[in-house]
Amino acid sequence: MAKKVLIVYAHQSSSSFNSAAKTTAVEVLTTLGCSVEVSDLYAMNFKATATAEDIKGDLKDAENFSYLDESKLAWEEGRLMDDITKEQSKVIEADFIIFQFPMYWFSVPAIMKGWIDRVLTNGFAFTQEKRYSQGIFKEKRAMLSFTTGSLESMFSATGINGDMNVTLWPLQNGILHYCGFQVLAPQIFWAPFSATPEARSCMLEGWRARLQGLLEEQPLSFISLDCFDKKGFQLKSDVQEKHAAKDFGLAVGIHMGKPLPPHNQMKAGS
Amino acid sequence: MAKKVLIVYAHQSSSSFNSAAKTTAVEVLTTLGCSVEVSDLYAMNFKATATAEDIKGDLKDAENFSYLDESKLAWEEGRLMDDITKEQSKVIEADFIIFQFPMYWFSVPAIMKGWIDRVLTNGFAFTQEKRYSQGIFKEKRAMLSFTTGSLESMFSATGINGDMNVTLWPLQNGILHYCGFQVLAPQIFWAPFSATPEARSCMLEGWRARLQGLLEEQPLSFISLDCFDKKGFQLKSDVQEKHAAKDFGLAVGIHMGKPLPPHNQMKAGS
Repeated sequence: MAKKVLIVYAHQSSSSFNSAAKTTAVEVLTTLGCSVEVSDLYAMNFKATATAEDIKGDLKDAENFSYLDESKLAWEEGRLMDDITKEQSKVIEADFIIFQFPMYWFSVPAIMKGWIDRVLTNGFAFTQEKRYSQGIFKEKRAMLSFTTGSLESMFSATGINGDMNVTLWPLQNGILHYCGFQVLAPQIFWAPFSATPEARSCMLEGWRARLQGLLEEQPLSFISLDCFDKKGFQLKSDVQEKHAAKDFGLAVGIHMGKPLPPHNQMKAGS
Repeated sequence: MAKKVLIVYAHQSSSSFNSAAKTTAVEVLTTLGCSVEVSDLYAMNFKATATAEDIKGDLKDAENFSYLDESKLAWEEGRLMDDITKEQSKVIEADFIIFQFPMYWFSVPAIMKGWIDRVLTNGFAFTQEKRYSQGIFKEKRAMLSFTTGSLESMFSATGINGDMNVTLWPLQNGILHYCGFQVLAPQIFWAPFSATPEARSCMLEGWRARLQGLLEEQPLSFISLDCFDKKGFQLKSDVQEKHAAKDFGLAVGIHMGKPLPPHNQMKAGS
């Protein structure tokens, strides 16, 4: 079955490793019969900041401007700026979204955070009821593919930057899974900038090989919304009891005071 | 002793709760004898995206543009754009930086991420040798002060969003402590938007009271750079041995496969 793929891509240079990773994804997925669209954020000069200018026409309460409320209303009434609605159309069309970027400060670059802040509008991408396992995009998949200047050892549970699983939790749980996306394991390119050209080629070949089977991969495990009560959104007591004797917590963030389940944000089934 | 305080502030509306929190900080700290400067990012229309336009004059390698390398060189040669150098001057002057913002997607809003990406330049804010406990700003303090739409119970180790300590790790360790800042416990305003006016006033009064003693607070605990070897940046074996029998890991990210030390990113001495 032909899939539609959106690559949200953030690098300033077309000769970068990130660009090569993006191009590799376009090539392989197209060969597999997918239609692939790329949102090249720097080339688009994508507006990163969430402001009142994102809304056409009158604001509901200009004196007490709330982006969360005003953008929701504007989305409902078709009054969001065209650059936002264009990206939202791409999200609706897509079966699968890949975010390709260089990690800046343990997170996405500001221009990509701007895409997240502005495109994943309240109402369009989530509601109080429709989030996490009941999220609006639960039929879609998403993943992070990124470079970092660090070695893998530095992002471990005994490394200077700490466990990469911890750093990924806000991005993968708080953004992707929050909107319902089934999240595939991240593709992490460790320190390509300080690697030899051969080692860089090898990293891209590994990505090329993974892309062949990417559409059939099992997603990472998250906790079903059913496991939480509807008031304080706490794990239900029967769920807590069921896991009381287990060695590990349920997920990186939902660790119940136990050791984190190893590779929870890095490998499917962990 | 009079201290210089910089508040990096990101909210679109001067009638917002975030604005009130910022104003409260300015008032109390000024009364205490501090000189307080505010960078009001939306009012400044602060550029969020890291692009080649941040650099004056010729690029070293325009064909293979690397923001990390080019901005470092431009900083060394005084060729960074004026909006960046102006913020860098404020950072140099400041003894203490407060980041005041509404949490967007488990992190800072894009405009504040842009300040971080662009102002904390390679060379100016960190080098390979000078980071973490040996970081360039180790004589300075910094803290996060933010609102979230969530209740505290939702950001716990048994709550739907997961432990707030996990979500804070990339921000507090990966950005603030990475540059050397001594990090004070975060000021978190839980769901002020759905609270009564009385409850909101109460939150601000709590902040006002904390501000009175803020400059004397003990910072959060992080792991000294000396504890890691210089090659793979792994915890040295003697440090690992010393902690092998302990109940908890050393820090949220550097958890050694043990349960996370409770409140590690929320309370001093944890």
